[in-house]
Amino acid sequence: MEQFIETGISQAFADRIEVRGYNLIDLAQNCSFGEMVYLLLQGRLPPGREGELLETMLVVMAEHSINAPSTHAARTVANCGSPIQSAVAAGISAIGDHHGGAGEQCAELLQAAVRAAQPFDVATAAAAIVEQAAAAGKRLPGFGHRLHDPDPRAVFLFARARELGLAGPHVALAEAIVTALHARTGKSLPLNVDGALAALASDMGFAPLMARGLFILARTAGLLAHVQEEYATGKPMRFVPRMQVRYTGPVVGGTAEPGPVTGGI
Amino acid sequence: MEQFIETGISQAFADRIEVRGYNLIDLAQNCSFGEMVYLLLQGRLPPGREGELLETMLVVMAEHSINAPSTHAARTVANCGSPIQSAVAAGISAIGDHHGGAGEQCAELLQAAVRAAQPFDVATAAAAIVEQAAAAGKRLPGFGHRLHDPDPRAVFLFARARELGLAGPHVALAEAIVTALHARTGKSLPLNVDGALAALASDMGFAPLMARGLFILARTAGLLAHVQEEYATGKPMRFVPRMQVRYTGPVVGGTAEPGPVTGGI
Amino acid sequence: MEQFIETGISQAFADRIEVRGYNLIDLAQNCSFGEMVYLLLQGRLPPGREGELLETMLVVMAEHSINAPSTHAARTVANCGSPIQSAVAAGISAIGDHHGGAGEQCAELLQAAVRAAQPFDVATAAAAIVEQAAAAGKRLPGFGHRLHDPDPRAVFLFARARELGLAGPHVALAEAIVTALHARTGKSLPLNVDGALAALASDMGFAPLMARGLFILARTAGLLAHVQEEYATGKPMRFVPRMQVRYTGPVVGGTAEPGPVTGGI
Amino acid sequence: MEQFIETGISQAFADRIEVRGYNLIDLAQNCSFGEMVYLLLQGRLPPGREGELLETMLVVMAEHSINAPSTHAARTVANCGSPIQSAVAAGISAIGDHHGGAGEQCAELLQAAVRAAQPFDVATAAAAIVEQAAAAGKRLPGFGHRLHDPDPRAVFLFARARELGLAGPHVALAEAIVTALHARTGKSLPLNVDGALAALASDMGFAPLMARGLFILARTAGLLAHVQEEYATGKPMRFVPRMQVRYTGPVVGGTAEPGPVTGGI
Repeated sequence: MEQFIETGISQAFADRIEVRGYNLIDLAQNCSFGEMVYLLLQGRLPPGREGELLETMLVVMAEHSINAPSTHAARTVANCGSPIQSAVAAGISAIGDHHGGAGEQCAELLQAAVRAAQPFDVATAAAAIVEQAAAAGKRLPGFGHRLHDPDPRAVFLFARARELGLAGPHVALAEAIVTALHARTGKSLPLNVDGALAALASDMGFAPLMARGLFILARTAGLLAHVQEEYATGKPMRFVPRMQVRYTGPVVGGTAEPGPVTGGI
Repeated sequence: MEQFIETGISQAFADRIEVRGYNLIDLAQNCSFGEMVYLLLQGRLPPGREGELLETMLVVMAEHSINAPSTHAARTVANCGSPIQSAVAAGISAIGDHHGGAGEQCAELLQAAVRAAQPFDVATAAAAIVEQAAAAGKRLPGFGHRLHDPDPRAVFLFARARELGLAGPHVALAEAIVTALHARTGKSLPLNVDGALAALASDMGFAPLMARGLFILARTAGLLAHVQEEYATGKPMRFVPRMQVRYTGPVVGGTAEPGPVTGGI
Repeated sequence: MEQFIETGISQAFADRIEVRGYNLIDLAQNCSFGEMVYLLLQGRLPPGREGELLETMLVVMAEHSINAPSTHAARTVANCGSPIQSAVAAGISAIGDHHGGAGEQCAELLQAAVRAAQPFDVATAAAAIVEQAAAAGKRLPGFGHRLHDPDPRAVFLFARARELGLAGPHVALAEAIVTALHARTGKSLPLNVDGALAALASDMGFAPLMARGLFILARTAGLLAHVQEEYATGKPMRFVPRMQVRYTGPVVGGTAEPGPVTGGI
Repeated sequence: MEQFIETGISQAFADRIEVRGYNLIDLAQNCSFGEMVYLLLQGRLPPGREGELLETMLVVMAEHSINAPSTHAARTVANCGSPIQSAVAAGISAIGDHHGGAGEQCAELLQAAVRAAQPFDVATAAAAIVEQAAAAGKRLPGFGHRLHDPDPRAVFLFARARELGLAGPHVALAEAIVTALHARTGKSLPLNVDGALAALASDMGFAPLMARGLFILARTAGLLAHVQEEYATGKPMRFVPRMQVRYTGPVVGGTAEPGPVTGGI
């Protein structure tokens, strides 16, 4: 008995490639990259101006600074003389639960709340979410940033979504959570770019996983720029001498003096 | 003495993020993702319609079929229960010299020829490249495809570049090589999507490495779609039983009978 | 205020390297690799014959067959022309929750049960675990194999642990679960290599995470062999034509005929 | 026509697994991990005491310090909340041409010289290699270390190889190169661990690629220890604030003041 791998994404023929049933060349003639991303991930062309919002989101998330850990990981691997696909892969590997992945967790939270509430009262839902997190002693994913308050990217993206008619209940809920957090804690915990992404992706109908996915896609552009710069300007092993290390382990046959701050293998 | 990591790409302040000297929010208001990619990788805004061509290129390269090895690698890793960043990273790792990487090799070839020739005669340059490859018994990277002849993506991208006024000497050289290859070998070796990407990226001023880089970026969109589909529909271990394996190794303490076609760890 | 990264693992001086407080050269003179692994991961030298058991475990887990998905992922990436570190990394990325990762989940289960039970009655604990899994409709990680019944590796490893005096309550519990599973379901669900690894690692005092870690380490040896063979014998793109694909997606502007079974990008 | 993937490494049957023709359980009863690695990579059991030397080499290369870039990459990815297989994969990705990969380059050099010279005069061969590198203005891979002079690991490994009767022409050549380098440059450029590994692997009959491969395998043990420690003790985002960054890019719409030293995404 023959086994098949099934897919509903694309198929290639000698004379054409079809993606989600459309000829790829027709798509290339008519679609922005944002629209193509929507089609690939949702299986249909955007019903409204989602392609425009996605373009804006990809621009906003493409780059932050050399201090982002994914950027740091990618440059470290490039600096060791591995090829670009390997360096970018290492950078993307760093987009985990604590870095970029908060978008997925936030989207799960927002989508569950919007799905559950019948009728949906945004202030009640927000208060419940904040209360639950406080009771569990947990930080809410997507809120708070070590540098930005507010995060100018979140502010801008929500304004743009409103302009395009794409701000729905998830955006409203995210904003209500900021208010509820302030009321509950007295602290300002602004929506960060992960949270904004989560709300917008949710209002456009993306699965929570794709909040993380869209961040991966956008940030790949920034990673390429950093890897290119690292190959061009970085001396081999340049990252290593920079760390201040304190040894806290046992001293059995050795001495307790601190080791030198230097690299090597 | 303090050591610094230098970068010319971006910096983050409390109230703003600057990329290549521009406020990220200004960029988000005015740029397509294609323009942002140009800015990130070349350090300045596109002088002409390069952003539009990049958008089209990203759409065209975003997806081909489930048979692409990078897609296969990403789905295999997703199928094993690793997270999305890990699956996409594995897919990108497969964009090596024999898959997607041909664009970089082709761009090196085209850029070296255009740089060297003074004055630049495209037919002479093409004939020399073909002769050199034939003498060395090598395939030219970027030419020939196992399925497409011509590759509809290459045909379309060149037409689009002409429309946008962005087809220059590298595009002309790539086309002349196809003619010269046919004259020399009697075989049709059409420009493939790697070759088209190489020529277009070169005419827009990208370094050869970024031919591979742009492919990585575009294909990440397709990888996201496949990984999402794999999580949703793929049974664990489903890839493994499919391979027909023939054991060719020694039989020391065992038997020569062929092993069963099945998976496992 | 200066910030430090703390570590208790190692430090390097001009004249020596210290690992967990021992001079690396002293370790090299006196330790097997199994003992070194124990020291690295547990912070002290093995009190008994754990180094011998670890050597045996590493041998047993080093290789299974080309059908293992991690092997498949590594060979696919090598076949695309990426370097060995990139191919091995992709293979390791596939050691997720459904492939190799079951050892970690099984170790969590076993350790929680042994820790909780006061006094520890192995048959009662096993029956409770089986009952809980059945009630939740879940498979128990570490039990059952699509090819082996029993898994000769599990049988051998437990015998070896007994011989070395290293089989404790986690090994006893794992065996009791097999019996309880059979009593409950009527089916034979033998301990597989993940489950054996989980029990042995737990009896030696490893954290559950290291059940997965030890599998990663051992299997890296097999991945190296496969990647080496792939570079030596694999034609580029050889994996791709092998998949039987059935397209299940929409047909909007195209046709419903099945696409050809072929590779490409 | 059916297509097959051929392999000479292993096959799995219901009742047994065979590696290179041997029953895996027989191997587990009789082999150290070092002997298993030799069998996997060379296709036959060690003819002499190669298994012992490999064990020692694996211990010596398993760990250096937290400053090794592969360790740094792995910890960065672990710190971001990605799973262990993803963090270890990123660490291995960093074992590129400038970090661990020098062993492969050195092995190529040594093996080519030993193969070419008829009769083989070690001093002449060493002088030729040093002369060639000096003429090309290149560093010799495998010689020189930023911290160690001599590298205690190289000294120890060569002594051990002699003790085991496994030091052959490649070891002799490596030592002669150190002498020739000193004579030519007046500087002390001791054999480092990559160079020692290259010479020993070559004398044992490994392909150059496996010099890098053996380093990957050994260092995976150290990476596991660091990733485990990072999960246990590292605060999220802790790596990022540490870098001193100097922005060197354009200031178009922004200001020239330096950005704050902080992390974020």
